[in-house]
Amino acid sequence: MNTFGTVFRLTCWGESHGRALGALIDGCPPGLELSESDIQKELDRRRPGQHIGSSPRQENDRCEILSGVFEGKTTGMPISVLVRNTDVQSKDYESLKNIYRPSHADLTYQLKYGIRDYRGGGRSSGRETVARVIGGAIAKKILAQQKIQIIGFSREIGGQFFEHVDFSYIKKNPLRMADKKNYKKALQILKQAKEGKDSLGGVAEIHVQNPSAGLGSPVFGKLESDLARACLSVGSVKGFEIGEGFALSRMNGSEANDSFLNSSSKSVLKDFKDQSFLTQRNANGGILGGISTGEDIWFRVAVKPPSSIGQSQETIDSSGKKVKIKIEGRYDTIILPRVIPVLESMTALVLVDHLLLHRAQCGN
Amino acid sequence: MNTFGTVFRLTCWGESHGRALGALIDGCPPGLELSESDIQKELDRRRPGQHIGSSPRQENDRCEILSGVFEGKTTGMPISVLVRNTDVQSKDYESLKNIYRPSHADLTYQLKYGIRDYRGGGRSSGRETVARVIGGAIAKKILAQQKIQIIGFSREIGGQFFEHVDFSYIKKNPLRMADKKNYKKALQILKQAKEGKDSLGGVAEIHVQNPSAGLGSPVFGKLESDLARACLSVGSVKGFEIGEGFALSRMNGSEANDSFLNSSSKSVLKDFKDQSFLTQRNANGGILGGISTGEDIWFRVAVKPPSSIGQSQETIDSSGKKVKIKIEGRYDTIILPRVIPVLESMTALVLVDHLLLHRAQCGN
Amino acid sequence: MNTFGTVFRLTCWGESHGRALGALIDGCPPGLELSESDIQKELDRRRPGQHIGSSPRQENDRCEILSGVFEGKTTGMPISVLVRNTDVQSKDYESLKNIYRPSHADLTYQLKYGIRDYRGGGRSSGRETVARVIGGAIAKKILAQQKIQIIGFSREIGGQFFEHVDFSYIKKNPLRMADKKNYKKALQILKQAKEGKDSLGGVAEIHVQNPSAGLGSPVFGKLESDLARACLSVGSVKGFEIGEGFALSRMNGSEANDSFLNSSSKSVLKDFKDQSFLTQRNANGGILGGISTGEDIWFRVAVKPPSSIGQSQETIDSSGKKVKIKIEGRYDTIILPRVIPVLESMTALVLVDHLLLHRAQCGN
Amino acid sequence: MNTFGTVFRLTCWGESHGRALGALIDGCPPGLELSESDIQKELDRRRPGQHIGSSPRQENDRCEILSGVFEGKTTGMPISVLVRNTDVQSKDYESLKNIYRPSHADLTYQLKYGIRDYRGGGRSSGRETVARVIGGAIAKKILAQQKIQIIGFSREIGGQFFEHVDFSYIKKNPLRMADKKNYKKALQILKQAKEGKDSLGGVAEIHVQNPSAGLGSPVFGKLESDLARACLSVGSVKGFEIGEGFALSRMNGSEANDSFLNSSSKSVLKDFKDQSFLTQRNANGGILGGISTGEDIWFRVAVKPPSSIGQSQETIDSSGKKVKIKIEGRYDTIILPRVIPVLESMTALVLVDHLLLHRAQCGN
Repeated sequence: MNTFGTVFRLTCWGESHGRALGALIDGCPPGLELSESDIQKELDRRRPGQHIGSSPRQENDRCEILSGVFEGKTTGMPISVLVRNTDVQSKDYESLKNIYRPSHADLTYQLKYGIRDYRGGGRSSGRETVARVIGGAIAKKILAQQKIQIIGFSREIGGQFFEHVDFSYIKKNPLRMADKKNYKKALQILKQAKEGKDSLGGVAEIHVQNPSAGLGSPVFGKLESDLARACLSVGSVKGFEIGEGFALSRMNGSEANDSFLNSSSKSVLKDFKDQSFLTQRNANGGILGGISTGEDIWFRVAVKPPSSIGQSQETIDSSGKKVKIKIEGRYDTIILPRVIPVLESMTALVLVDHLLLHRAQCGN
Repeated sequence: MNTFGTVFRLTCWGESHGRALGALIDGCPPGLELSESDIQKELDRRRPGQHIGSSPRQENDRCEILSGVFEGKTTGMPISVLVRNTDVQSKDYESLKNIYRPSHADLTYQLKYGIRDYRGGGRSSGRETVARVIGGAIAKKILAQQKIQIIGFSREIGGQFFEHVDFSYIKKNPLRMADKKNYKKALQILKQAKEGKDSLGGVAEIHVQNPSAGLGSPVFGKLESDLARACLSVGSVKGFEIGEGFALSRMNGSEANDSFLNSSSKSVLKDFKDQSFLTQRNANGGILGGISTGEDIWFRVAVKPPSSIGQSQETIDSSGKKVKIKIEGRYDTIILPRVIPVLESMTALVLVDHLLLHRAQCGN
Repeated sequence: MNTFGTVFRLTCWGESHGRALGALIDGCPPGLELSESDIQKELDRRRPGQHIGSSPRQENDRCEILSGVFEGKTTGMPISVLVRNTDVQSKDYESLKNIYRPSHADLTYQLKYGIRDYRGGGRSSGRETVARVIGGAIAKKILAQQKIQIIGFSREIGGQFFEHVDFSYIKKNPLRMADKKNYKKALQILKQAKEGKDSLGGVAEIHVQNPSAGLGSPVFGKLESDLARACLSVGSVKGFEIGEGFALSRMNGSEANDSFLNSSSKSVLKDFKDQSFLTQRNANGGILGGISTGEDIWFRVAVKPPSSIGQSQETIDSSGKKVKIKIEGRYDTIILPRVIPVLESMTALVLVDHLLLHRAQCGN
Repeated sequence: MNTFGTVFRLTCWGESHGRALGALIDGCPPGLELSESDIQKELDRRRPGQHIGSSPRQENDRCEILSGVFEGKTTGMPISVLVRNTDVQSKDYESLKNIYRPSHADLTYQLKYGIRDYRGGGRSSGRETVARVIGGAIAKKILAQQKIQIIGFSREIGGQFFEHVDFSYIKKNPLRMADKKNYKKALQILKQAKEGKDSLGGVAEIHVQNPSAGLGSPVFGKLESDLARACLSVGSVKGFEIGEGFALSRMNGSEANDSFLNSSSKSVLKDFKDQSFLTQRNANGGILGGISTGEDIWFRVAVKPPSSIGQSQETIDSSGKKVKIKIEGRYDTIILPRVIPVLESMTALVLVDHLLLHRAQCGN
């Protein structure tokens, strides 16, 4: 299914080398100021970066708002946003028509549907994330009204964990690292991979700053459940952990537990938006029992290295014969920095949907 | 929300110390043989084990099928299954009425709803998983018709990784380990934690054996996305990785990629159910591009140690005052072995829903 | 599917002669006072009446709230309500096992599912409406907080249109007529039908008094669309018209149009809840463009005569042979008065869902 | 909400005088031949007719398929179809910015959202039905594979009931009448209304020929419930009746009941697609217990006269003041014939969704 969300809903469509890609946002609150440049700004963050490991495909995506906005404001009607595909070089892919690239979706699409648009990966291409970023741009504007911010960075690259976190540094480097001291080291690893016609993976860390308490609900509506779903729906994502995640599973309960503190003398329940408690170290990522505490929400996401590499690889074709391929299209040595705005977008979509659902049931 | 699934749907209800818990299964194919003992068998697997780290709460859950089954077969109507709560000792929890236990859901429920059933954790208690196991028992019966089997085991306990996997050993030990050689070692760790009034976490690994190819769909319908959502909706779960997961993010592309092999001379696409290809090591957990390949599906799930421990802990009460608590109810030293049937159940629900969705769109 | 609603959701289950019937309400706002007697009161309105045309089946339904209510208030968790079936005489139906009663669902259930619980009509029996009334009772309590009331009455019986409307009279007669003057006449018609071993239909009219303006949304979310769906989902219902309905289609535009008036000098948009405009005659039933105006919502529903009659009828059995049947079970000569609380319930469910959806998107 | 359907889903967007309108179809079976001309053909049927009562707005809608089709066949991916708005004369509507037209949606949109695109009615305009017809065109192609056909006609115009039905005549006249004998009479009525600057309503009758048996499901999934919802979601529609509808409510049970016949000696249940039973007169419109019998499905829909008329009308403006208006835009004297392809489209959407849902649960 190509729809995400319950009351704030994103529906996506489009193939890599088709005429266009698009996003449709339904359930958006009316009266929100929204322009194409609000969306363009986020789309630009998703484009191939200026660093050594970026695809040369230009993706100068220009978005066009076709509905749902009147005199600069949302009307509550569905917002349709279109991006035409340009700089498409479908011929690069002709030779792959009957070949299943390793660790790609070619084979499973063919198995399931009996037909596939093989040009540039068709619907399975990372191009589809354009639509997610469009939806996320609108969701972020809604969150910004409540001073909720989402920021992601490269916590690991090629197995290197970068310990230092300086949020202000993230937007200053194309790898979206938060650790200035290790930036050069990361570039070095990347250069090496590129020279070896190889690719690199990494781990993204996403923070939601100043979230409302009370988002999410018990059992199947847990906030971390929807965040995990959102992240794993992004191509190349292979793992998710909320807060200290897998590390918690390796601690004793006495270590893992995270006591509540009271940072003031106020009652903790007086005001939802201004609760005065904190946990000692926010080990659970800002969520307890599936519901946000009001602390920062944080989680990590494993992103595998791009499957398209310049080295020769063995695989099979549609007749079952063994063949060797070298991927000739344009691709990224590392996709992680470009996945980060996509993960931020998915996070924003989850939060806005839960904000509206909370308002529906609990009225505030 | 308390409903899971699109066309095969489980709806759950009930609190730990309320009158009853229940599950409602809608969209079940008609004509399936189903009896209370089919469900009871799975409920029994979920009960506190016979090992040293188990809760003394009896949970002798007896299920009653109230609708949707006629003369031993499902009729296609909603199947309602009821489990009365017994052996409830609510007084244990009176003293916790105004106290927020660390790393529990007490505080966030209160924040969100302004009211909570504090007895035994109410809806946030692991008791709710009774309903998931009921749904899973029915889903497993549907899968069994297609010879699809789901089996989970304790891959890690207290940080110890157990390398050896013998599927036949799993049901022979109450810790649901697959590694016979290390069973005593695990018991040792558990005993130590119990003596220290502490608790232990671990990592579950779930395998789907002989799944159909073609389950799942692009973008938001990816099979691993729904599996992640399903697992993270279970209490205590803090992380999820499909196939080699986080480890993939630390490899180069040339290592991470997993070539297709052809185990016979047949065309790979001739027969959906009997495709002859394999990957070299099933690194992606049986899913590519969000769609199952037909290989075994496998993933890992991080389960944190139970937050209820016998040690004295600091926390706050509803007036914001610092208080010390020792949990007096009945609880488990390790919850992992009991979470495994729950994760299996959630996996079964996801698979059946995708089987039916695939049949809807693609007709086979 | 057995679930109704988007954020305030009723899920129903149970067969006529099974062990029990039940309703599950999810998404209910927390903090609402709710007791079994609130629900029982509405269930009692649905029972066979004390008039001449009522079924002798007792249906002394006693409801039990199993979850979601704590210390007399809703907690925001799913509310499960159970009603055990009693006074079941399944033997009456043994002889109908292989016979398809005319204008009943026997044949289509068998065709679709290949299996059916034939006892008392199974899931197709009007017994299932117990669950709707349970959901409606809770929805009505939520509406009552906003002083919104729903009231239905018998506008027609056996083709007789009753012109006079006195809302206070409705609860004083078992036929739920609003026209005191014609009550005896109606009884007369009913007696005649009963004596002829025949049955009667009629038309219900439902009024929502003092609804909020702004409920419903454009295109597929139109309020009248959801009301029509709600009403046509009730067994025996064959038609729906909003406001002047079919009569409007027979007028010229200049007659059909219904001008806005302003009953005061106030701006019409200042206050949602207290708008000062009215239309001349509320021809469109309180809804324009799919959204409530704030005027009373009103619509009519065609209810066919019960298909079970004491006269001998021709039909076929499962081998295709012609057979004659006389229905021997207990049944109603007229079902309309009992359908009215069901229609009120469905209306309440639609309104509460739209109230919460409106709050989600528009925030008030 | 702007999405319709559960597994075969249409999502719509666009305003009357915005840049474009569009439809997104998700869940379409793969491998279906589909071209722009398939859709164009249906769009052309929806355009203003060549008769005396048609709007002079040209609406030369040209559709563009942007995704989901590859080499002439659907791929199973979402199908996005775009129609640019042309021949837009927004100035006609400037003067209506602060005026609420009687029986239009202007006032309720303003009340609900606090903002509205007043140009040409914005989202409330009949222009939105372009998207429904696009979705319907695809649904009809799927139905055609199973030889299921949908055809609608004008059963009443301006209160005149046209008794004779000749299906072959429908496409030969712009009023979509099935009664050749009365065509001139209808034209006469229409001419009169137009000369009086007035408008006309009518009743549409829709037939589904050769439907599968077994579509629909009990309780909230009844086929007639979804059909009613579908029809009432179309602007100007004020009533719906399945089969003999309101007339049934005025009969005795012995008249209303409709016996099963067996047209051959075959068992009625052997073959789903070729069942040999019929009812005497198909009084229930081809649906019993919410499930299709396999007989033709038929129902009627009340369409009110267009609210935009050339006569001077009283209404109020946004300050609450009384004003007089004459509608100056381009409009239709009768909208019924143009609504028919829209109702057919909605019917097709309902049927395909139920076909796929049936296949999901029951597997055939």
